[in-house]
Amino acid sequence: MIRVSANYLEVLSEWRRDFHRYPEPGWLEFRTTSKIADLLETWGYSVYVGKELITGERMGLPNQESIMSFFEQAKNLGANEKWLAKMAGGYTGALAILDTGKPGPNVLFRVDIDALPILESTNESHVPQQLDFRSLNEGYMHACGHDSHAAIGLGLAEHIMQHRDRLQGTIKILFQPAEEGVRGAASLVSSNFFNNIDYFFALHIGTGVEQGVFVAGTDGFLATSKYDVIFKGIASHAGAFPEQGKNALLASAQATLALHALPPHSDGSSRINVGMLNAGAGRNIIAPNARMQLELRGETTEINAFYESQMRNILEGIATMYDIEVHYEKVGSAISVPSNRQLAEQLAKVAKALNIPTLEYQYFNAGSEDATYLMEKVQSSGGLATYSIIGTDLAAGHHNECFDIREKDMLPAIGIWLNMLFHLSEE
Amino acid sequence: MIRVSANYLEVLSEWRRDFHRYPEPGWLEFRTTSKIADLLETWGYSVYVGKELITGERMGLPNQESIMSFFEQAKNLGANEKWLAKMAGGYTGALAILDTGKPGPNVLFRVDIDALPILESTNESHVPQQLDFRSLNEGYMHACGHDSHAAIGLGLAEHIMQHRDRLQGTIKILFQPAEEGVRGAASLVSSNFFNNIDYFFALHIGTGVEQGVFVAGTDGFLATSKYDVIFKGIASHAGAFPEQGKNALLASAQATLALHALPPHSDGSSRINVGMLNAGAGRNIIAPNARMQLELRGETTEINAFYESQMRNILEGIATMYDIEVHYEKVGSAISVPSNRQLAEQLAKVAKALNIPTLEYQYFNAGSEDATYLMEKVQSSGGLATYSIIGTDLAAGHHNECFDIREKDMLPAIGIWLNMLFHLSEE
Amino acid sequence: MIRVSANYLEVLSEWRRDFHRYPEPGWLEFRTTSKIADLLETWGYSVYVGKELITGERMGLPNQESIMSFFEQAKNLGANEKWLAKMAGGYTGALAILDTGKPGPNVLFRVDIDALPILESTNESHVPQQLDFRSLNEGYMHACGHDSHAAIGLGLAEHIMQHRDRLQGTIKILFQPAEEGVRGAASLVSSNFFNNIDYFFALHIGTGVEQGVFVAGTDGFLATSKYDVIFKGIASHAGAFPEQGKNALLASAQATLALHALPPHSDGSSRINVGMLNAGAGRNIIAPNARMQLELRGETTEINAFYESQMRNILEGIATMYDIEVHYEKVGSAISVPSNRQLAEQLAKVAKALNIPTLEYQYFNAGSEDATYLMEKVQSSGGLATYSIIGTDLAAGHHNECFDIREKDMLPAIGIWLNMLFHLSEE
Amino acid sequence: MIRVSANYLEVLSEWRRDFHRYPEPGWLEFRTTSKIADLLETWGYSVYVGKELITGERMGLPNQESIMSFFEQAKNLGANEKWLAKMAGGYTGALAILDTGKPGPNVLFRVDIDALPILESTNESHVPQQLDFRSLNEGYMHACGHDSHAAIGLGLAEHIMQHRDRLQGTIKILFQPAEEGVRGAASLVSSNFFNNIDYFFALHIGTGVEQGVFVAGTDGFLATSKYDVIFKGIASHAGAFPEQGKNALLASAQATLALHALPPHSDGSSRINVGMLNAGAGRNIIAPNARMQLELRGETTEINAFYESQMRNILEGIATMYDIEVHYEKVGSAISVPSNRQLAEQLAKVAKALNIPTLEYQYFNAGSEDATYLMEKVQSSGGLATYSIIGTDLAAGHHNECFDIREKDMLPAIGIWLNMLFHLSEE
Repeated sequence: MIRVSANYLEVLSEWRRDFHRYPEPGWLEFRTTSKIADLLETWGYSVYVGKELITGERMGLPNQESIMSFFEQAKNLGANEKWLAKMAGGYTGALAILDTGKPGPNVLFRVDIDALPILESTNESHVPQQLDFRSLNEGYMHACGHDSHAAIGLGLAEHIMQHRDRLQGTIKILFQPAEEGVRGAASLVSSNFFNNIDYFFALHIGTGVEQGVFVAGTDGFLATSKYDVIFKGIASHAGAFPEQGKNALLASAQATLALHALPPHSDGSSRINVGMLNAGAGRNIIAPNARMQLELRGETTEINAFYESQMRNILEGIATMYDIEVHYEKVGSAISVPSNRQLAEQLAKVAKALNIPTLEYQYFNAGSEDATYLMEKVQSSGGLATYSIIGTDLAAGHHNECFDIREKDMLPAIGIWLNMLFHLSEE
Repeated sequence: MIRVSANYLEVLSEWRRDFHRYPEPGWLEFRTTSKIADLLETWGYSVYVGKELITGERMGLPNQESIMSFFEQAKNLGANEKWLAKMAGGYTGALAILDTGKPGPNVLFRVDIDALPILESTNESHVPQQLDFRSLNEGYMHACGHDSHAAIGLGLAEHIMQHRDRLQGTIKILFQPAEEGVRGAASLVSSNFFNNIDYFFALHIGTGVEQGVFVAGTDGFLATSKYDVIFKGIASHAGAFPEQGKNALLASAQATLALHALPPHSDGSSRINVGMLNAGAGRNIIAPNARMQLELRGETTEINAFYESQMRNILEGIATMYDIEVHYEKVGSAISVPSNRQLAEQLAKVAKALNIPTLEYQYFNAGSEDATYLMEKVQSSGGLATYSIIGTDLAAGHHNECFDIREKDMLPAIGIWLNMLFHLSEE
Repeated sequence: MIRVSANYLEVLSEWRRDFHRYPEPGWLEFRTTSKIADLLETWGYSVYVGKELITGERMGLPNQESIMSFFEQAKNLGANEKWLAKMAGGYTGALAILDTGKPGPNVLFRVDIDALPILESTNESHVPQQLDFRSLNEGYMHACGHDSHAAIGLGLAEHIMQHRDRLQGTIKILFQPAEEGVRGAASLVSSNFFNNIDYFFALHIGTGVEQGVFVAGTDGFLATSKYDVIFKGIASHAGAFPEQGKNALLASAQATLALHALPPHSDGSSRINVGMLNAGAGRNIIAPNARMQLELRGETTEINAFYESQMRNILEGIATMYDIEVHYEKVGSAISVPSNRQLAEQLAKVAKALNIPTLEYQYFNAGSEDATYLMEKVQSSGGLATYSIIGTDLAAGHHNECFDIREKDMLPAIGIWLNMLFHLSEE
Repeated sequence: MIRVSANYLEVLSEWRRDFHRYPEPGWLEFRTTSKIADLLETWGYSVYVGKELITGERMGLPNQESIMSFFEQAKNLGANEKWLAKMAGGYTGALAILDTGKPGPNVLFRVDIDALPILESTNESHVPQQLDFRSLNEGYMHACGHDSHAAIGLGLAEHIMQHRDRLQGTIKILFQPAEEGVRGAASLVSSNFFNNIDYFFALHIGTGVEQGVFVAGTDGFLATSKYDVIFKGIASHAGAFPEQGKNALLASAQATLALHALPPHSDGSSRINVGMLNAGAGRNIIAPNARMQLELRGETTEINAFYESQMRNILEGIATMYDIEVHYEKVGSAISVPSNRQLAEQLAKVAKALNIPTLEYQYFNAGSEDATYLMEKVQSSGGLATYSIIGTDLAAGHHNECFDIREKDMLPAIGIWLNMLFHLSEE
């Protein structure tokens, strides 16, 4: 077993804090990607960025103005023009490939790199504030730990190169964009880079697991679909000509009730939420417009699909009822895929051999993850996939303005993945 | 001026009490029609009954069982087989025609003859109970005064024949079925009998007008449409397989809200009411069925039509939303037509000449009347039409189980109409 | 081991067919109880009937008219006046007690005896029709197998008396009323008869278990509450004075939507169903009344209680919104209690020793059972309780008009319970 | 008769364009008021500003930030510090008083001075753009003609002073703030300045009246109430803990439906509109907040009050249903008061004597005006009040980004009002 030096935590922390200082939300990780790609290239990886990687539709793309603004900012912060050119328009994320030249397994590691539109706390008890790495992109924050995931991915990449002689087959490390809102994975899963993967690994920090504990495999991710819905009616003066309006606000209120009143499903749990509703053009105007953000979830991919079909019925019926236009667009999507128990077992053995407190397999409730698209692709072509959790002490829950991790909990993951790779090379 | 003898009230009362004793609801006036037709024929009128008269669709027809039951009862009570044969299946109502053989105007009088599904009071203070002419058809009652309308129509018919030598042109008296629920007039307005009418008269007793006062012309009837709606979904066990049901109860609840939330109309007042809703097959079953009775009203025919169109959108949209079948049927309909001021003025003059306290023209709010179909037909072919009110003291409001009129208020109408006819013959 | 003679099936079938012929719904089991009590008394049991047994509120009591009608019918069919006197007003059900006089465990067996308001099939393929034991109470039917449960209870009672010398402690057999709609158990669980029970056994026939198979213990009954809700508003003419009404129909529609839109619960599955809604007094009347039948279910008793609390909020809020009265009454209730695995194991051993194909423990989904009240009482005072299933071939699903069991599947239950009793006496 | 010189239009236009260039919305008319007060003081009026005038609650006050920002801007544009000091915090508007020293009537003229939050058109065909007086306060616009009303008020004031020797009694000219959203009048009607007014005059330009025509008296303003509603629930993760949230979005949707489903009123027309709804904190969060802007209107003050009472029931019921907080605040209000026919007749005579095409009295539909508060106060203390309309050709409808008047239509109003004042002084 190779053990990663405790001193290496300094390197990881520096990267993590840098990412934390410059959080970029999904499809806008221009600076983040550029920095990652530079390092990977320096270490000797073949690096793929932009349309080389993103082969499908991008869901939930920000508006043009945001894209331009983050792009310019990255440029101003010194991002590499070579990568920027490839990412223009929001094609972010990077894939590192190391072909060992020796026959062996095709292994894919995946970490995610995007931040959230959350205003970070300025409370003095908030460590990033204390230690001066609080977000410099006001209104955006790494409040889900993807800054640490990116750092772990880099740490893994650097160690792999140091031990490349012991390795066989092909090793790929994906720094995936736009995981928040489950948008990114679906856009790149169709890429040929992800065909015939033998082993797939992904991880998340936190999620309620006890500090220092490693969970090798998980189940329970809910399949989910995120939709944006637009209702277009006709405005009219509410006092003078109420009958001439086509009331989009009323339509959206009734759609909301119908969506929330959908029945439960006997095959497993489900969730429906209209989380945002914005409608109207003025107090005295029959509202000509409404905009709704909703999400559906199901314990299985089939349950989620059932609710998608019900949602379509509701929205199309509402259009007829109110004689308005209704447009809906899927802006995020994930499926429900369990980890392979067999691969989790092997990974757990490796972790235990490193004296890391380890749980082999755990069921988590109610979250969603788009790594499931990659897991399904791997498993359906005969590969094995597992999704792990690294326990840490959180200063506050995920997506909270005071969210923070214990940085030292990043370190074990690198050792576990590296030694697993040795194990797979030896098989 | 001819004055109707005060003694004639006895004749009118006898008829009125006979009708009151045997109330028959719309399309089931078998005995009532038979009695009327017998008298008319005896007096020398040409009498038309059944399909000779009813040339269009009958809305709101009772079920086959009710038709059979009232038909048998009429037969048992001695109704004339000749008329019964023509009425089989619910083609009730009668038209009397007197062709004077002299050139002159085409005049149509219209009264209605149907009763209501109301259980009549047995209170000792209720006059029909006291004087022993309470309904013998338990559960049905003349609670809107159509028994008196029928008696007035007969009284007019008898007097006309007594004075036929003074009359010119053609005189028609229509004993219309199924006014309650505004069903009958639309079914016969297409008949050629009602082409080229020069003068049209109809009346109602009560409606809040002071006792003894005659209102010659009225405006303000609301156009209206009555609909029955059936929702057909799919049942399933609410505990075991909730997602397999198609919930008709939920669909009908949402349709109700959408209908009641339709906007007001800037061209005039409107009314929408879902008055009855019955849904479900059991507490623990996703409801596979719902049945709704609703009505729409508008100050103009166009406003009412606007809401019909909105209702269709809503019901068709609901069908899509809940993936269920929705069927709707118009079971009643009236339009909004004002009386001719000119004809009302003439009629008022006649009434005043008879020393009857008279109002020339009055606006009434919020009721509906299907005589409006005949008024529109008359007016659109160049004729004049007026709808009058006879004031009386009501024991209780229309459609109340204690409703009762002062019988003596029936008498003046005959004199007014008869002398108006002389007036028209002289022009 | 004692084996019950195969010939005894004839006795069981005769009882079962007699009950099937005279189905009596919950709280109206006058004839059924009388027959059972007569037999139990004959065999030497102390028999308790009526208020001796029913010590709490009875939920979902039928109206007075139904009570009188079934009571008279039972009398006419020769029911014992002694028991009838105790049951007057609907205090049905019987408890048999055998005190062996020897120290030993307190054992309670429970079967249910009520029928359903279902019109039984007259199809020639329906065995009760063929063999002439179809319901003589038109509109009521033993469509859930409680006729066979009652027969099993009697069979057990007769066998116990035959073997009383081998038995110790006190044995109680409860013939519980009103299980349908989960009403009866809650009314008698407070009785002192059910204090300090050491072992509790109940069973059901059918429910999808393979023919001939015995399931010794079960889990998964949903906690449930059934409510009847009445909305009282104020009527007014929908055309003339719409603003004077207090619209109970609209209120009930909105309550329905709010109830169905309650969120899922993260602790487990739940069900909400407004299964029946009847509202209105006429098409043209603002509806002054509505009546709703609904049920709530939860995977745990706590989840169900959560929805009860939400329902109360909704109904009280609706009363304020529409300025109407809302009354709600719990008409049925059950909790969620799993069988003791330990007792199920013992019972399974006995069954296997009798060469009966046996499953030790099974999870069932989505049904409810009020025996859970007794199970909870037993378990909370330190006793053990298990609920078993007897597999059979059903001619049609539970609550279907063609429901029928294979009678021979009644027999094994008697042997299993009897030998279990020997086993407990020996401990 | 005194005729106002046609050249005076230049003066009016200059004022009107200046106001147009610096539009200030309700309660923020710092610069506008300052300019008006300076002129009035120069001409010799006693001028009252700020809390001297505003004695009641101010509805619909903008937030502190807006108040500060417009205040600073006015200061920077050279507004008089004396007036600014009195207006600090948003106490805008001015009252000019001329006491002639001679006994005579108490006369009040009222014009309004506020602008709208509308982005003015930059279209070259838009006259303010062409002639370079388009709004310099980007996002705000005089799109309802109050700039011309303010100019007319100033023109009247200047002419009155020129002819003060002919005048008797006391003359007051009110430059009212915050008419848009019907907010200002209610805040100052309680001031003693408005006690015992004998004659009251107000006017509006446009509103569909033919160019050049003067309408002396009007009826038909709808009573109205504007409300802002805030729903405060509790957020929770929609996937993980849906039952822990208190869903303010769902609550607001249901409140919207209930409000729109309120019945029509038999005493006259009414309007209800939820015109704006903004709810939610994120797609995957049970929405903890919603904000609604609504308005109610009634043909009479009583009808409007009926809907206010219904609205309170609905909002309080919703709070209970969803266990959330609901806060509502009235942010605008007007009542329904017709002009005195007698005063309108006198005013029409004056206008006709000036050869101005004049209509004596007209019914307008569906608009609201808070001058009605002053009209009611005047009429209830025995005075007479009339509200006039000045016809003009509008480039686009009121509140449209291309709204514009013909400036020459301002002129006649000054002559009419001035001569009316002579007429009243002579009586």
